[in-house]
Amino acid sequence: HEQAFKATTSRSRTFNCSRNTEISIEKPPRSILIVNKLRTPPVIQAIDALLEYVHEKYPDVRVFHEDRKDIPHGAEVWKPGTDASPIDLVVTLGGDGTILHASSLFSAGEVPPVLSFSLGTLGFLLPFHIDDYAKALESVFNGKATILNRMRLACTFYDSDLEKKGEGANDDWQVMNEIALHRGASPHLNTIDIFVDGQHLTEAVSDGLIVSTPTGSTAYSLSAGGPIVHPSLSALVLTPICPRSLSFRPLVFPSTSIVTLRIGDRSRAPAGVSMDGRTSQILNPGELVTVQASPFPVPCINRSSIIDSATAAEMQHREGAGPGKEDDWVRDINNLLQYNATFRSKALLRHSRT
Amino acid sequence: HEQAFKATTSRSRTFNCSRNTEISIEKPPRSILIVNKLRTPPVIQAIDALLEYVHEKYPDVRVFHEDRKDIPHGAEVWKPGTDASPIDLVVTLGGDGTILHASSLFSAGEVPPVLSFSLGTLGFLLPFHIDDYAKALESVFNGKATILNRMRLACTFYDSDLEKKGEGANDDWQVMNEIALHRGASPHLNTIDIFVDGQHLTEAVSDGLIVSTPTGSTAYSLSAGGPIVHPSLSALVLTPICPRSLSFRPLVFPSTSIVTLRIGDRSRAPAGVSMDGRTSQILNPGELVTVQASPFPVPCINRSSIIDSATAAEMQHREGAGPGKEDDWVRDINNLLQYNATFRSKALLRHSRT
Amino acid sequence: HEQAFKATTSRSRTFNCSRNTEISIEKPPRSILIVNKLRTPPVIQAIDALLEYVHEKYPDVRVFHEDRKDIPHGAEVWKPGTDASPIDLVVTLGGDGTILHASSLFSAGEVPPVLSFSLGTLGFLLPFHIDDYAKALESVFNGKATILNRMRLACTFYDSDLEKKGEGANDDWQVMNEIALHRGASPHLNTIDIFVDGQHLTEAVSDGLIVSTPTGSTAYSLSAGGPIVHPSLSALVLTPICPRSLSFRPLVFPSTSIVTLRIGDRSRAPAGVSMDGRTSQILNPGELVTVQASPFPVPCINRSSIIDSATAAEMQHREGAGPGKEDDWVRDINNLLQYNATFRSKALLRHSRT
Amino acid sequence: HEQAFKATTSRSRTFNCSRNTEISIEKPPRSILIVNKLRTPPVIQAIDALLEYVHEKYPDVRVFHEDRKDIPHGAEVWKPGTDASPIDLVVTLGGDGTILHASSLFSAGEVPPVLSFSLGTLGFLLPFHIDDYAKALESVFNGKATILNRMRLACTFYDSDLEKKGEGANDDWQVMNEIALHRGASPHLNTIDIFVDGQHLTEAVSDGLIVSTPTGSTAYSLSAGGPIVHPSLSALVLTPICPRSLSFRPLVFPSTSIVTLRIGDRSRAPAGVSMDGRTSQILNPGELVTVQASPFPVPCINRSSIIDSATAAEMQHREGAGPGKEDDWVRDINNLLQYNATFRSKALLRHSRT
Ligand SMILES: NC(=O)C1=CN([C@@H]2O[C@H](COP(=O)(O)OP(=O)(O)OC[C@H]3O[C@@H](n4cnc5c(N)ncnc54)[C@H](O)[C@@H]3O)[C@@H](O)[C@H]2O)C=CC1
Ligand SMILES: NC(=O)C1=CN([C@@H]2O[C@H](COP(=O)(O)OP(=O)(O)OC[C@H]3O[C@@H](n4cnc5c(N)ncnc54)[C@H](O)[C@@H]3O)[C@@H](O)[C@H]2O)C=CC1
Ligand SMILES: NC(=O)C1=CN([C@@H]2O[C@H](COP(=O)(O)OP(=O)(O)OC[C@H]3O[C@@H](n4cnc5c(N)ncnc54)[C@H](O)[C@@H]3O)[C@@H](O)[C@H]2O)C=CC1
Ligand SMILES: NC(=O)C1=CN([C@@H]2O[C@H](COP(=O)(O)OP(=O)(O)OC[C@H]3O[C@@H](n4cnc5c(N)ncnc54)[C@H](O)[C@@H]3O)[C@@H](O)[C@H]2O)C=CC1
Repeated sequence: HEQAFKATTSRSRTFNCSRNTEISIEKPPRSILIVNKLRTPPVIQAIDALLEYVHEKYPDVRVFHEDRKDIPHGAEVWKPGTDASPIDLVVTLGGDGTILHASSLFSAGEVPPVLSFSLGTLGFLLPFHIDDYAKALESVFNGKATILNRMRLACTFYDSDLEKKGEGANDDWQVMNEIALHRGASPHLNTIDIFVDGQHLTEAVSDGLIVSTPTGSTAYSLSAGGPIVHPSLSALVLTPICPRSLSFRPLVFPSTSIVTLRIGDRSRAPAGVSMDGRTSQILNPGELVTVQASPFPVPCINRSSIIDSATAAEMQHREGAGPGKEDDWVRDINNLLQYNATFRSKALLRHSRT
Repeated sequence: HEQAFKATTSRSRTFNCSRNTEISIEKPPRSILIVNKLRTPPVIQAIDALLEYVHEKYPDVRVFHEDRKDIPHGAEVWKPGTDASPIDLVVTLGGDGTILHASSLFSAGEVPPVLSFSLGTLGFLLPFHIDDYAKALESVFNGKATILNRMRLACTFYDSDLEKKGEGANDDWQVMNEIALHRGASPHLNTIDIFVDGQHLTEAVSDGLIVSTPTGSTAYSLSAGGPIVHPSLSALVLTPICPRSLSFRPLVFPSTSIVTLRIGDRSRAPAGVSMDGRTSQILNPGELVTVQASPFPVPCINRSSIIDSATAAEMQHREGAGPGKEDDWVRDINNLLQYNATFRSKALLRHSRT
Repeated sequence: HEQAFKATTSRSRTFNCSRNTEISIEKPPRSILIVNKLRTPPVIQAIDALLEYVHEKYPDVRVFHEDRKDIPHGAEVWKPGTDASPIDLVVTLGGDGTILHASSLFSAGEVPPVLSFSLGTLGFLLPFHIDDYAKALESVFNGKATILNRMRLACTFYDSDLEKKGEGANDDWQVMNEIALHRGASPHLNTIDIFVDGQHLTEAVSDGLIVSTPTGSTAYSLSAGGPIVHPSLSALVLTPICPRSLSFRPLVFPSTSIVTLRIGDRSRAPAGVSMDGRTSQILNPGELVTVQASPFPVPCINRSSIIDSATAAEMQHREGAGPGKEDDWVRDINNLLQYNATFRSKALLRHSRT
Repeated sequence: HEQAFKATTSRSRTFNCSRNTEISIEKPPRSILIVNKLRTPPVIQAIDALLEYVHEKYPDVRVFHEDRKDIPHGAEVWKPGTDASPIDLVVTLGGDGTILHASSLFSAGEVPPVLSFSLGTLGFLLPFHIDDYAKALESVFNGKATILNRMRLACTFYDSDLEKKGEGANDDWQVMNEIALHRGASPHLNTIDIFVDGQHLTEAVSDGLIVSTPTGSTAYSLSAGGPIVHPSLSALVLTPICPRSLSFRPLVFPSTSIVTLRIGDRSRAPAGVSMDGRTSQILNPGELVTVQASPFPVPCINRSSIIDSATAAEMQHREGAGPGKEDDWVRDINNLLQYNATFRSKALLRHSRT
């Protein structure tokens, strides 16, 4: 039966839309950028061990670190920008926020593959435990790592004369989770006109609006009532925050859509802008932002990259999913979100005596 | 400003995922199938006018009708099946249900382009008013009609021995809106195991589950709390019906996913199956259904097909959307769903005296 | 600080609406009715032990049981109705459904206090573990038991001529959880007109409607999206099931309201009626049901009844809640519903190595 | 049938909880306080007309106005506080916010009956159109006005040493809609511990929390996903704002409950406090607020007060509701919230030709 079940539930795909999952990195990296937000003792220790390991095992590889006071010993300083040293691999140590930060360092163009380690706490974007760094690096250098291209959103801001806000031409922001507009500390609701591909969709009177990627669908958008969207889908999610309407539902658009949010001319409040959790600027009545899929996704190295052949073989029998196909996402929504944690099953919960 | 706004909100797309919208029909149709559910006087009249018009204007075109007692005068009988006469165009007259019915007539393979007329009442899948039939047919025969490929779902049923239920090999059902499993008249909740690509996602204890297309996201799934998904996106929406869990949210999967629903062995109730609103069978404990994107979408002719050049030119200036780009969907969710019908604006609603 | 906190959060009440919680039973019971749905070995054993204990400790007390083939040895037969033997105490053994069943035995008038035991599995209406039966009975016989009067709803059915359906005058149904109208196995939505105190509220097009008590707010109504209402509040909750409207929200009415549900004359489907999970009848177009607070609540004996003086004293210091004030409900929504089970806290969940 | 229907749906109440609706004002007022927020020409005109009318018709009545630069001619200055002139009637002119403001003027004790006029725009708390002022005043002076006592919440703030914040003993705030805690402009979620009657309910990680009255259930709480609660019910509604949990549902408590919200010691953000839409203070980690029903509701004069006997007689036949029983609330949720505005009915919406 097990075999038959496997066959039944994972037959060859009939539709040929390539998912973003099975791309692999071919060339061994020659430069690594380490990204961390905190410098707590466990982080320092982990970075030291990692650096030592890289220097020894892959002596030709250069290791970089963001320009801060406390850059780890043995790393070179790295500054983002047009003449930044090329980076072949980003290694992050910390929580989900550390990856969001790494993404922000590459807002003008392509992002190198990102290998993310947790330091013992779970996160949605954290496939690896720090203790597995050797295994994980090996799979990258051997060309066995597989990646999930996590879509980003490019956001461009315009003032009420429709001039781009900011100076340079390349000032578009790239977000991995979401852009959120919110009344912030203003006591009043704001009024935002929403356009899709230039067509007026509706006028939202609310605390704010979120335009999220599938990756971000489990972040702020989820708290505001949005659906959970698989990160291998290319789509935009529009979720209102406390709308003054009974009939405002989350919307999911194809990633070819351009969403424009324009603060209403008579909006009683401006809107503060947060991008991946960082507040950036204020949009006043008449000002607008356009949001669309960025050409530069974040290539995140998958957990399945380090599943060894034994495990892979076993999985092939057990699950119907070949090596490298295990889906972190199902595990995550169950473990981290406690998705559908049903009312405790009778079998499990014993009534304790008083 | 208008010009600039247009430029801002509909710049050339940066991501190159083709949307399903701009495909056009090239060859003039040589056979037409008329589909209608009712034979009320307005329907009879409309069909008669249409038939007369086709016979006169396109004398070589054959017109067919489903085999029923009351087939319209001048139409030939058509039976679905492997040796059915080839159909180049389906014309439906009636409500949304008529299109769902037309879709069911082509469940084994490709669906010809569908041109749908309402008889004066609005529907989500009804772009044309019957009075516009000449204009609409003309755009089809001139190769100017554009289509939206509405994704369908192929559903295959298995008994608890994992043998396909039903006989033939081609018994897969194709649904345009959704497949819904429901306890129906049973007083008890059912228990359904959900698998995605062979991986166990969760066990749902609920009244039932819906797997919907983006088209169906505005139908039953919406009533059950699901998000609204643009029909040009390829995706599957999983929405629970009255789950006994506080933490069950709608999920959106890429259209490459295979969703398997298996009635739990100890489920207290079986599940009745409805496909596009038609009840079909009962699934008992241990039985299952797999759901995946069908290779045979329904090519629906768009409203924008009959926008004349004057309107198109005007739109180009006004809206930033070129000819044939007007989106029926935005109009529909506003008009039909009263999407975000905000609490009546103070300016509009006068307080009437007692 | 603890003391001050206690004082701060539980100061003497300023509003004088009596809650239903602190009523106590004064006279020792002279007759007990045992209610159980199953006769599995653990239930049989539990009943035998209980019976023996009662006969020995309270020899004058008569013990009754519903008239069934398998009534326990030592119990007298009891039949509901106008000349039923008077019952001073109901003892239930089983799940929540057993209490709903006990409630249904007293649908024509007053309900005796109900003492409910679980057999090891938790339930929302089950304060006591069977092993505590001696302690629990003692508190009842000593006049120390406190009760929560759980409101019920009286439902009266009328045909389309507005004649009462059924014969006798006392045919009102009394429900403890809810009355639910549902399209059941019909493929079509039904249309139900809702009146509140004779005023037309709205026409609901949906799968169905639920009118629930606060007790029932954690049952079906919750699954359909309703709020959680504390059982000591007197209120009616109206929750739609899959409404074809974006703007239908649950409503909470005072218990003085009369809610009337009338199947629309042109409803495409009738509505099956379920009361506390038991299907009873079908309402056809034009037929109606009125729902209002019943004068006969179910007096449920609280868990706090058996908190001994040591515990009570301890609680007084620890929690700010005096003896007999501990609220089962907070415990239940946390334990049973996993209320607000937040995304796993970083501190608690260790990332396991692959 | 109509008669029978009326009898069926509004039979004499079986439960005897007095609703707050049918209280009437007996003594004719001797002093009136006029409250308005704006001094736009229509407001000025309306006040002048009203003042003239009162002076002429009820010459002994004193008219007061809040102490502002622009107090209307013919009115005396009034200052809130312990030695404020006694007020028998408050007249408000403006939107819902004007009534909230009037409520705030009487935060230390009893509130006089409030008669609210709109200036042509609808509001939830606005029963009368300004053109009806004569009729409305007459019903008050004749003792025919009926009132709905709208419950308020008393809020008391404590610092982390559990000392009352602010000086005087009577510093409790009284809110008519809600108290809302929100992270405001902070990028981080806050952590708030919720206690009910001294018992710990849960720890909320969210943008914020709302504790609302039934009156406020159609204000901010509704936007955040809360249920609609009839204002004649005495209850507290707890609604989370964007909680980071899938399983946080709105809760409804009896008005005897005391809800305590305490900012978690390790909360990453403080919480800004808004009361009826006015931001007041910041609560830092460790600080708390207790919320409970106030002994001082706002007695709002009902629309039904000015239904003349003809209308009343007519209503008696038509609706089954006696004079003075018409419920503004049903009208309001339909007109103002567009409650259950179903997908446009086929009969009403004609498909317009292109
Ligand atoms: N009410 C809410 O739920 C709010 C959520 N946020 C989210 O926080 C994000 C910023 O994260 P941090 O810098 O770590 O701030 P943070 O330290 O305040 O953490 C926010 C939480 O969100 C989690 N998170 C981040 N991205 C996620 C994702 N894609 N899926 C699931 N969980 C995710 C983090 O693990 C963390 O538990 C923003 O992008 C926004 O999505 C921000 C404000 C309010
Ligand atoms: N509680 C609910 O909302 C239920 C909804 N349905 C829906 O009804 C559909 C069958 O439709 P009919 O045969 O016309 O039955 P029907 O005559 O019972 O009509 C159902 C309604 O759904 C509308 N509808 C159908 N497809 C739609 C779509 N894709 N988007 C928006 N609205 C749509 C129709 O216009 C009609 O108003 C099913 O596929 C199912 O989606 C079926 C049962 C319950
Ligand atoms: N989709 C859903 O959530 C459905 C729920 N029900 C509920 O089941 C009830 C009948 O219960 P049973 O006879 O035990 O049938 P059942 O054995 O089918 O169990 C229903 C579940 O509801 C729980 N339950 C019952 N009353 C509850 C309450 N007041 N609060 C919280 N949980 C409660 C029971 O413990 C059980 O887990 C009905 O009154 C109805 O409320 C019935 C049908 C569908
Ligand atoms: N996202 C949201 O929905 C927010 C709502 N508010 C609400 O605004 C209220 C303050 O009102 P204003 O001073 O007029 O500010 P405002 O001028 O910003 O208006 C808020 C809107 O709420 C309406 N409103 C007020 N009380 C209401 C009630 N009890 N039921 C239904 N609608 C009601 C008003 O008519 C107005 O349309 C606050 O008490 C809060 O409830 C405040 C902030 C955000």
